[in-house]
Order: sequence, then C-alpha cells, then structure tokens
Amino acid sequence: MRHFGGSMRETRLVFMKFFKHLKTALMTGCAAGVMIPMGTHANEGMWLYNDPPRQILKSVYDFAPTDAWLEHIQKASVRFNSGGSGSFVSEDGLIISNHHVGADSLQKFGDAEHNYLRDGFHALTQAEEKRCLDLELNVLMSIEDVTERVNAAVKPGADADAAFKARRSIMAEIEKESLDKTGLRSDVVTLYQGGRYHLYRFKKYTDVRLVFAPEQQVAFFGGDPDNFEYPRFNLDICLFRAYENGEPAKVQHYLKWSSSGVTENELVFVSGHPGNTSRLLTVADLEYLRDYRMPYTLQFLHRQEVLLTAYSQRGEENARRARETLFGVQNSRKAREGKFAGLLDPQLMGAKRAAEAKLRQAAAAQPELKDAAAAWDQIEQAQKIIKANARDFNLLEGGHGFHSTLFSIARSVVRSLEERAKPNGERLREFRESNRESLELSLFSEEPLYDDFEQLKLADSLTWLVEQLGSERAVVQRVLAGKSPRARAAELVRGTQLKEVAVRKRLYAGDAAGLAAAKDPLIELALAIDVEARAVRKIMETQDEVKRQAYAKIGKVKFAIEKTSTYPDATFTLRLAFGTVKGYVEEGAQIPYQTAMAGLYERADSHKNQPPFDLPQRWIDRKAKLDLSTPFNFVSTADIIGGNSGSPVVNRQGEFVGIIFDGNIQSLVLDYIYTEEVARAVSVNSQAILESLRKVYDAEDIAGELTGKPMHP
Amino acid sequence: MRHFGGSMRETRLVFMKFFKHLKTALMTGCAAGVMIPMGTHANEGMWLYNDPPRQILKSVYDFAPTDAWLEHIQKASVRFNSGGSGSFVSEDGLIISNHHVGADSLQKFGDAEHNYLRDGFHALTQAEEKRCLDLELNVLMSIEDVTERVNAAVKPGADADAAFKARRSIMAEIEKESLDKTGLRSDVVTLYQGGRYHLYRFKKYTDVRLVFAPEQQVAFFGGDPDNFEYPRFNLDICLFRAYENGEPAKVQHYLKWSSSGVTENELVFVSGHPGNTSRLLTVADLEYLRDYRMPYTLQFLHRQEVLLTAYSQRGEENARRARETLFGVQNSRKAREGKFAGLLDPQLMGAKRAAEAKLRQAAAAQPELKDAAAAWDQIEQAQKIIKANARDFNLLEGGHGFHSTLFSIARSVVRSLEERAKPNGERLREFRESNRESLELSLFSEEPLYDDFEQLKLADSLTWLVEQLGSERAVVQRVLAGKSPRARAAELVRGTQLKEVAVRKRLYAGDAAGLAAAKDPLIELALAIDVEARAVRKIMETQDEVKRQAYAKIGKVKFAIEKTSTYPDATFTLRLAFGTVKGYVEEGAQIPYQTAMAGLYERADSHKNQPPFDLPQRWIDRKAKLDLSTPFNFVSTADIIGGNSGSPVVNRQGEFVGIIFDGNIQSLVLDYIYTEEVARAVSVNSQAILESLRKVYDAEDIAGELTGKPMHP
Repeated sequence: MRHFGGSMRETRLVFMKFFKHLKTALMTGCAAGVMIPMGTHANEGMWLYNDPPRQILKSVYDFAPTDAWLEHIQKASVRFNSGGSGSFVSEDGLIISNHHVGADSLQKFGDAEHNYLRDGFHALTQAEEKRCLDLELNVLMSIEDVTERVNAAVKPGADADAAFKARRSIMAEIEKESLDKTGLRSDVVTLYQGGRYHLYRFKKYTDVRLVFAPEQQVAFFGGDPDNFEYPRFNLDICLFRAYENGEPAKVQHYLKWSSSGVTENELVFVSGHPGNTSRLLTVADLEYLRDYRMPYTLQFLHRQEVLLTAYSQRGEENARRARETLFGVQNSRKAREGKFAGLLDPQLMGAKRAAEAKLRQAAAAQPELKDAAAAWDQIEQAQKIIKANARDFNLLEGGHGFHSTLFSIARSVVRSLEERAKPNGERLREFRESNRESLELSLFSEEPLYDDFEQLKLADSLTWLVEQLGSERAVVQRVLAGKSPRARAAELVRGTQLKEVAVRKRLYAGDAAGLAAAKDPLIELALAIDVEARAVRKIMETQDEVKRQAYAKIGKVKFAIEKTSTYPDATFTLRLAFGTVKGYVEEGAQIPYQTAMAGLYERADSHKNQPPFDLPQRWIDRKAKLDLSTPFNFVSTADIIGGNSGSPVVNRQGEFVGIIFDGNIQSLVLDYIYTEEVARAVSVNSQAILESLRKVYDAEDIAGELTGKPMHP
Repeated sequence: MRHFGGSMRETRLVFMKFFKHLKTALMTGCAAGVMIPMGTHANEGMWLYNDPPRQILKSVYDFAPTDAWLEHIQKASVRFNSGGSGSFVSEDGLIISNHHVGADSLQKFGDAEHNYLRDGFHALTQAEEKRCLDLELNVLMSIEDVTERVNAAVKPGADADAAFKARRSIMAEIEKESLDKTGLRSDVVTLYQGGRYHLYRFKKYTDVRLVFAPEQQVAFFGGDPDNFEYPRFNLDICLFRAYENGEPAKVQHYLKWSSSGVTENELVFVSGHPGNTSRLLTVADLEYLRDYRMPYTLQFLHRQEVLLTAYSQRGEENARRARETLFGVQNSRKAREGKFAGLLDPQLMGAKRAAEAKLRQAAAAQPELKDAAAAWDQIEQAQKIIKANARDFNLLEGGHGFHSTLFSIARSVVRSLEERAKPNGERLREFRESNRESLELSLFSEEPLYDDFEQLKLADSLTWLVEQLGSERAVVQRVLAGKSPRARAAELVRGTQLKEVAVRKRLYAGDAAGLAAAKDPLIELALAIDVEARAVRKIMETQDEVKRQAYAKIGKVKFAIEKTSTYPDATFTLRLAFGTVKGYVEEGAQIPYQTAMAGLYERADSHKNQPPFDLPQRWIDRKAKLDLSTPFNFVSTADIIGGNSGSPVVNRQGEFVGIIFDGNIQSLVLDYIYTEEVARAVSVNSQAILESLRKVYDAEDIAGELTGKPMHP
C-alpha cells in the first residue's frame, strides 16, 4: 500500500518515516522557475545493492567497486525501523545516526525531570548506556529475486481482488519460509511499483542502547527556518550501540573514520534507506498527488502543527511531551510544501507529460508492447476509485480520525486476535507471522503516555473526522456516541486500561470473549469501526493491485525503449547513491561546498542568540577551545530523500567522511525528478564530529572508539 | 452580506473585526458537556440604545436608567473602525481601548528601528502624540427607524434579484440624503437578519493620535495559551486622543473614572460594538456553519498561522512585520475552535432544533402566520445555493485567493473607477457615495508594506486558490499565467507600482484608459478576475435577500409567539449589555470574580518568566513599588462577543470601572446561545490601570487626566 500505510501500526511507522525523517525537499524557488532537464544525470539514482551502477561509476569516475567493497558498505549500513538510517562505526557495535532519527528514542526516555531530547546525553561507561524502549534496527544480509514465484502465484485472468489475495499469500509464505530457515527477518519488497519482488533478509537488533546525543539546539540549530536550507551548521548526530545477549555486538563490517573529511569535487557514496519517491509515477498518479493527496495532507499537518504549538506554549512540561511529535509535523510540513510547489510548477508537470507521451507513443508503435498500451489508462481508472475512497481510507483505516497512540494500541490488539485465527497468507499484511516479533516490540512498548496529550490529539482528530465525513454519517455517529468530540475523547482516554502494558499483554494473549469482557471503551471503539475500515482498505488494496500490474507493464516498456539500467523508486530499503562534493549557484551567489564551525557562532550572533538560533551554554563556554576553521557541514549531488537521514557518506576507500541529515530546499523536487543543478544533499562532516566530541563534550571515550581505540569501560 | 464580507476592503475590515478582535468564546469544555438551558436569562442581551431593556433592569435590579444616563453612555462610546470599541475618558478627547484594538495602529507605526507594538509608547506632551495612519473612529449620534421606507422600495412580487437591487438602492439613497443633510456618517443597518432597518448617524474622527500603550508582553501576558482564559492578569489597554481641526477634541460626554472598581455581585453595564452573533439563525444556517464554513475557515486560519509563525521565526524583523497579522489569526483560530466545538455539541444543536420545531409548529397552527410557515424552508433552499457557491465566493470575491494588501488596493482602485460611473444606488455597497471618505482613508493609507511579506502571503493564497478551485479551472490558469504560485506572486509583487500612494491617487483619479496604460500587473490581475468575482457575489447577494425576507417573517412569528421584547444579533453597531460581577465554578473549583496584581508575578514565576509568560523588565523593576493587592482583572455575566473589545464597563452611576478585553473559554458559545452559568466577560479593572500608569510607567500625566486633572501640555 502507498497512501497512508495499512494498519494503524504501519500508519505510525509511515508517519514516522515520511512525516518525520523526510529530510530532503522540492521548491524551484526563484521567481523564474528552474529549468528541469529530463533524462540522464551522471549522479542520479538510488541503486539496488544487487544491481549497482558499475557502468556509470566506471565511465564517469573511473571507479570499480569490488564485491567485497559493496558487501562491506552494505553490512555496515543500518536501518532504524522508527524511520531513518545509520551505520556501524566500531567493532563493538557503535552506531551513528542523526539526532533527529534518535529523537524518537530520546523522547521516550524523558519525564518531567529529564529532557534528554533538549539537554543531550553521554554515557561515560557501558553501564550508563540506556536501553531504548522499542527500537528495532535491521542490517541487510542478502537479497533474492522472487519475482517469478510471486507472479506465478497469480493465476492468469484472475481479477484484481483474487490477484491481490494470491500475491499477499505467496509473499507471507515466502517470508515465513525464509524466517524459519534462516532466523532472519524476511520481507518481500515490491520494487518498480510491482515490476519486481525481492526477498530481503535482515539481521535484527532489538537491544539498542543510547550512547551519546548532543543538545537539540545544536543538532537542529536554526530550527524550522533553517530546516531544508543551506549553508548549515548542525551537529545532527546521535550514537547508539547494538547489543546481543546483553553484550555489545561484535561486528565485522563497520566503517573506518576519516579524519580528513571531504575535498571539493570528490566522489562520495551514500548508503541508506530512502523512504519513498514518486519518480516513476504516471501523470495521472502525479495529478492525484497534486490535486488531492498533497492538499489533504498539508491541511492535516497544518492543523496538527497549530494544535501542538499551542499545547507546547502552555508550559515547559507540555513542550517536552509534544516536542518530538511537533518536530515531525513541522519537518513534514516544510518538506511537503516544497514538494507541492514542485507539482504546481508547470515546467515539472510539462516535462513529466512529455516523457509519458513519448513512452506511450513508443508502446503503441511496437506490436510486442501492445499489451502495455492500456496500462496508463488502467492506472488512471484505478486512481479514480482510489480518489473516491481516499477520504474514508485516511480517516477510518489510516487513523487520521483517531490520532492517538492508545487507539493504535487498541486496534492492534483487536486485529491481532482476529488475524491470528486466519491462515498466515490470508492475514492483513502487518499481521503476517514473520512480522510478529516486530509488532509485539511496538505493541508492548513502555513508551510513556500522557492522558492530556492523548486527549488533545484524539479530540482534535475526532473533530477532523466529523469535518471530513460529516455529522450525519452513521459511522461518525457511532464513533461519537452522542457526545461532542472533546467530551468523547476525554471519556475514551480516561476510561481505557490500555495504558498498562500488562493489560495489553493479557488481552493480546486472550480471545474475543476476553476482549468483550474487558469493556474497554477504546477496544469497543476499534471494534465498532472495524467493518468500515477493513472494507475501504480492501477497495484500496484491490486498486493497488490493478496499479501494480499496470506499472509492471510500463516497466517493461521503459526497459524496451530506454534499454538502460535503472533503479526503482525508493521503498525504505537499502540503496546506494553517489555524487560529487560540490557547491552551487543561488540567485547569482556561489554557495560553498562546505561550512566551517566559525559560521555557527556568526549565525547565532547575527540573531542575538535568540531561539531557534541560540547556542547551548556549553558551546558558548567552549568556543575558545575549538578550531573554528574545522569543516562543519557539506553538500553533495548524491541522490537522497526522506529516510536517508543518518546515512553514512563514504569515500572511495569506504571511509566514513560524513553523515547525511538533510537536503537543501531545491532538493525537495527529488521526490519526482532528479536534478543536480542546485539540488544538494547536506551532511555533517566527520571532522566536525570529532572536534565537537573532544572539545565541547569531553567525550574522548567516543572520539577514541570512532578512531579505532577500545570502547569505554 | 454575511460570509466573508463584500469587497476586498470590506473583507479586510471583516478580517479585522471578526478575525482579530473577536474577544469572546465557545467551548463546553468539560467532558460531560454543559447543560445549556434555553429561554430567558436575566442578563442576556446586546440591546439597542433605542430599545433598552428597561423592564428587566427594573424588575431584576430595580434600576431605571434615565434618558440622560443612556445618552451619556451612548455618546461616550466610540467605535474603532479597524474593529473594536472604546470610550471617551476625558473632556479633552482622551479615549481608552484595548492594546489589541490599538495594535493595528501600533503595527503601522513600526519600522526596523521602532517596535511600538512590542515596546509600548508614552507621549509626554501633546506634541509627541502620534497621528494614526488610517484610523477612523465613530460615535453614534442618533438612530432612526427606516424599515418602512426600505421595505416600501421593494415592489410586492419582485424576485430576489430585483428586491436586492431595490433595497441596495434605497439604502444608498437614505444614506446620501442623511449625509448631505447632517454631515454625519450615515449607515443603514440591517437588524434581525432583515426584520428591521435603522439609520445610524455617526460623528466621525479621522485625526486620532496615540497617547499611551504598554508593552505587548503585559497587555497580552500569557499569550495564546491564556487567551480566552480566566483567571487573567492582562493590562490590555491603549490610549488615544481624538482631534478636531488639529486640536484635541472637546467632548461633552466622557466617562468619569472610578477609583474604587467593582464589588462582587454588582450590576455593571457594557457599551460597545459586538461584531457578529448567530443566535437567531435557523438550524439550516447553523448546520451550514458547522458543516462548511467553520471547517473551511479553520483550515484557512491554520495554514496562515503556520505560514506566519514560520516566517516570524526567521528573525526579529520578520517577527515584527508579521506580529499583528499573526496575533489576529491566532486569536480568531482559538475563538473559532471554541465556537466550532459548540456547534459539534449535540446538546447545543438539540436545543436549537427543539426551539425551532416549537416555533414552526406555532407558525403552522396560527392562520395569521401562515405566510411565515415556509420561511425556514426558504432559508434552507437559499443555503444550498450559497453552499454551492461559497468556495468560489471566498476565493475570488472574498479575497482568500489573493491575500495581500497590495491586491486589495488594486481591486479597490479598479472597482472605484467602475462603480463611480454608475448611479449611487446601483453601486456595490462599499462604493456608495456616503462611504467615499472612509474608503479613501483606507486606500491612501501610508501603511508600510514589505515586498517579502506581501509575496509570502500572496504565494500562499495563490496555492490555496489552486488547491481549492483546481489547476484546470480557466480562471485559475488566467491568474497563474503559466507560472507556479510562488513565481507568479514574486512577479506580481515586484512588478506593481501600487506601493506608492501617489500612484494609487493618480490611477484612482483617472479613468479606464489610465488604468490600462499603467500596465500594472496587479491591476491587470484584478481586472482579469473581476467578471467571475462579481458574478459569484451577485449570486450570494441574491440569496442573502431571500434569507433576509424569510428572516423578517420568522421575526414576526417570534414576536407573535414569544411576545417579549428582544434584541437583534450583533452587527458591529452600538449595543448596551449588562450583568453581574460574579465568579463561577469550574471542575469543582470556585473561580474568584477578580484577580490581584500579585497573581501576575506568581504566574510569571511559575513559568520561570519564559515566553509567553515573561514580564517586561519595567514590571520586574517596579514590583516593590506596586500595591500587589490592587484588583487586576474581573469577570461579569454581561453578554458580549468579538467587537466588544475595548468596551467600557460602567456602574449604575455611569462611572468607568473597567474595560472589556476578552471572554473566558466557556463564553465562546455566546455566538449561538447565551448562558450565564459559566460564560464570563473579562475586564481590566479601573484601579489596575491607574496603579500601573503611576507606579510602573511614571505616567502621572495620563492618570491625572483620567481622574479629572488637565491634560499634559
């Protein structure tokens, strides 16, 4: 499923992934618009590890990565299932990612007395490393093409509904088989919008501990105004350690630290997990994004941003509770505004239309592609049905009408029981057997929940539900039970027992009779809307199958016509991108390829050290100690998108030279089209990380470990 | 017109009035909902000065205001045409209103070096009093019932379109006649949704000078979190002086200052200009508000709040430029959220339905009311047409698609020329001859405009236009001229010459050929959409006429059935309300009727003096000088709504005991229904004003003038 994810749990994950760590952007910016040439760019691509761009690397950069080189980078790369990327940087399982990727864990550690997200954290000893509540990390171990097996399960002539069911079933079967055989997390990944199916096997870490985080003020210096902007001065890092059997994980593949950073025009690689791109979409699909989904999503984000900001202003503890959610919403809002601006740029849409016309013409002209000629119309037809059902889907199944962690938990419990009774292949996808551990990790999280905050979100989203579906709809009236949204939210949150993890476990382990006996108002609510929610999900899943089949045909046309090796749209699975370290020109000014630490102090000064341009006290105190000429952030033409946050940037030698944390404002179009004129990926320089750890944080233990010394005691 | 006002200029005024000074609120608040008893409340009513509630005052309070008492309060009351109320408080034309009413003028005085809105202002001498750029004040001199003459102009059997035109024409004629005869601003006011027409004559002041304003931090202490809340600690005041012929106006009617404030359970009066209420609306009209207008308006406000907040965060000067607009948006958002919550409360709608059913039954049963029985259905029918056209109306005519002061100016210039050529009675209402001076005051204002801020708002609203009307609409494509919204906004703002008042004056004085010759892109845009904008306005005006006629019939039914004296919905004209100074119970706690100055310091302390709970330095420095037991803010049951901001609160002796500046959160329902259980009007106490002026601001000159001494030199 695309749209807003499948189950509530998946929705939450999608929220995290695309709403929160979407650290790249579109906005053609200047008044005259930007010429976006279609066609090949030397540095384009989020390449599959089993189909790397050897030819381009060879011809453009005279670089031929060996299989060992690729395997090393692949296995040093880490996926944060909360939404983001990272990499191993010591043999003792030390992992570096972004502060804003770690923020989810930092938030969950906090309470009224501790605000690690704001104040930072540094474990001086192994014993002080703090175990994250529900963080799962994945390391890609192997990829296997299972396209033929998946497609063979779909009987020729099967209607879309039957085809969807057959495909879901075979995917669950392949995954279960692989899990049983290898013990590895096994996911069948849909690539090229349905053109290929690959089985990804991951080594999974669920004992992950926090080692170090700077203050959010310096990690996210400049706040929302500087987000998706460059030049930048952010120390957007966070360090974790993977544990196995209660001990630091011993890893073979970890990246060696470069103490010399990058040079201008150098070739660099980015290995990470881009979440979602829309480059292969047809014009009909893009128009749907432009005309319905983007406006809808922005409305939903705007109201949440206002809600959370107003709540946060009421006091310090409110601000702490809402911090991470608010950041996610603001980040997503700014990214989507940029993407939407791109969709509204006639040049971008014009280029997409022209390319599509060319492809369709070619398909129509070649007899062997005749079968594919109808694919575009099929997508357009499916899109009409999707559009007609999107509102119901978003509100009832996507969870926008019940925006509360407690409701997500209620739905997970309710559906777990229902789905468990079915054969593995017939379950809703997130309840497949091979996903069970991950689901339970999330469901039984000890994440702190606050009645007032849950009520706030739920009351607001129930209001949104009424607004969107209308007061008179039977399902709305059932949800509200004769009360106003605020009164109903208060009653539900106060009344539920799901705040207790023990209750969740008991109900989850029990049966339908146990659920009914609990008389929990949120469980009852989840049950009361389940028929409608499942029904609209089914409609969407069927249409997605129609689209998958059509996209598979278009993929064949593309390959037949363009005859070039290519890469699929992003799917939050591991990809290899590459590019050049390189500045750009903006409104006539040359923007340098990297900034220096001195710039941080200059920017704070020019804003009188006022939020969000205020420095942590520690940075003010240690200024004299720092070498202010140390490179801080740099840009490159590597092809990235949200989900790439925390990806390591490595050089030809496979050394860690930096960490991706953002894209500039001009990069937001990358969702739809690659351009290297002015779009740039923004990274923290490896040198700045060492300099800060040593001179600002007195963290020689970590700096040492990064540079090859033993880990702290 | 209701909806969002007529012309752009009127729209701006309506924005000001209802979006900004809407200082009252609905929110049944607690989980169980609030019982809202229908029927009479002792203290209900926003009464007409020519039909005061003598009987109730006599029977409940044993108070019989004399004609002289009423005339005195009436003529001491001042309307701020920027949206709000005030009163004369010295014989030398000194006027007190709220800081948030004066904020519009304070904002316009500012530049990169001066931030009067934030920092406050105090003219030590008459020469230092600063003339406001475009502020018009009105004092009501007389009321005349012209209902018969207005209705007589509408021929029996005329269709709604003809009826509307006839009514517009006769109103313009009456106004012009009155202006010529008396020299007073003359407005025919539509009351009871069309049941009555009264001619209001106002003395007009256009030379108004700023005398004193405190810092916004203390005027709006607690910011958005405390807005519409109580207990409160706000010094929400601003002092102006009316001038005539370059000298301070000598006024006969001004309020004497009470140095003893209020006592619990005391009867008080509020004389001000409530902007808009919806108490007499039919259920069909209320459902339209609930199902369409409120959600739409909140979406529009949410996106603006996010836009303006993000812009403000970029730096101090940005924050200054956007401050007043942002405050208005936030204020309106919070008010509307509360009102919307009321409309979503089944108890409120249930009560409205029951009352309407009773009335309809009575109408159907009485032969002499037969004619009225269809009125409710007529309103419902009209409402359907209004709903179908509301989107176009809001975007194209209401200005939501072109949210920029420069565009408003362009449209005013374009339409002034077109309308001037028509007979007075056939013009769009805001271009009637009697409104000419007010229109020119606004059009030729030297208000500072900033390219970046204008572009920001225009780009955002053009995006909203595309979102709402769709990329494919011809009018949208004409507006965008093949560019993206951002590119188009940049081009329009950079290209227009209307930033120069001299250019506006020249074009305004000229003709259509002059307009065309100017080749001004904003003028061209205003011209390019004028046909569509006028067309949709005509549809709405016609349906409003249908509703006016139907409401007139319902008014007759109400009077025949209820046989009680009543008051019309608010119309931003002078009304007299009254009530008791009285605390209330909230979630079991007794909320006191007034707060003391000590509470301000306690609240700041409990929030560590962090924004928006931070005190101005002056207040910290002067704490020891203050008598902290001085009463600060108090609540009463007086019936108020947005527009009442700045209204004087007077006692039986007609003395100024306080100034209205807000309603509590429970008062937001007053838009639809009066309740005195927990809804309260919030005022600054007269004693706190004197104490602050003397001890914090060393403003003995002003304190002296308020207490009867001569004005400063």
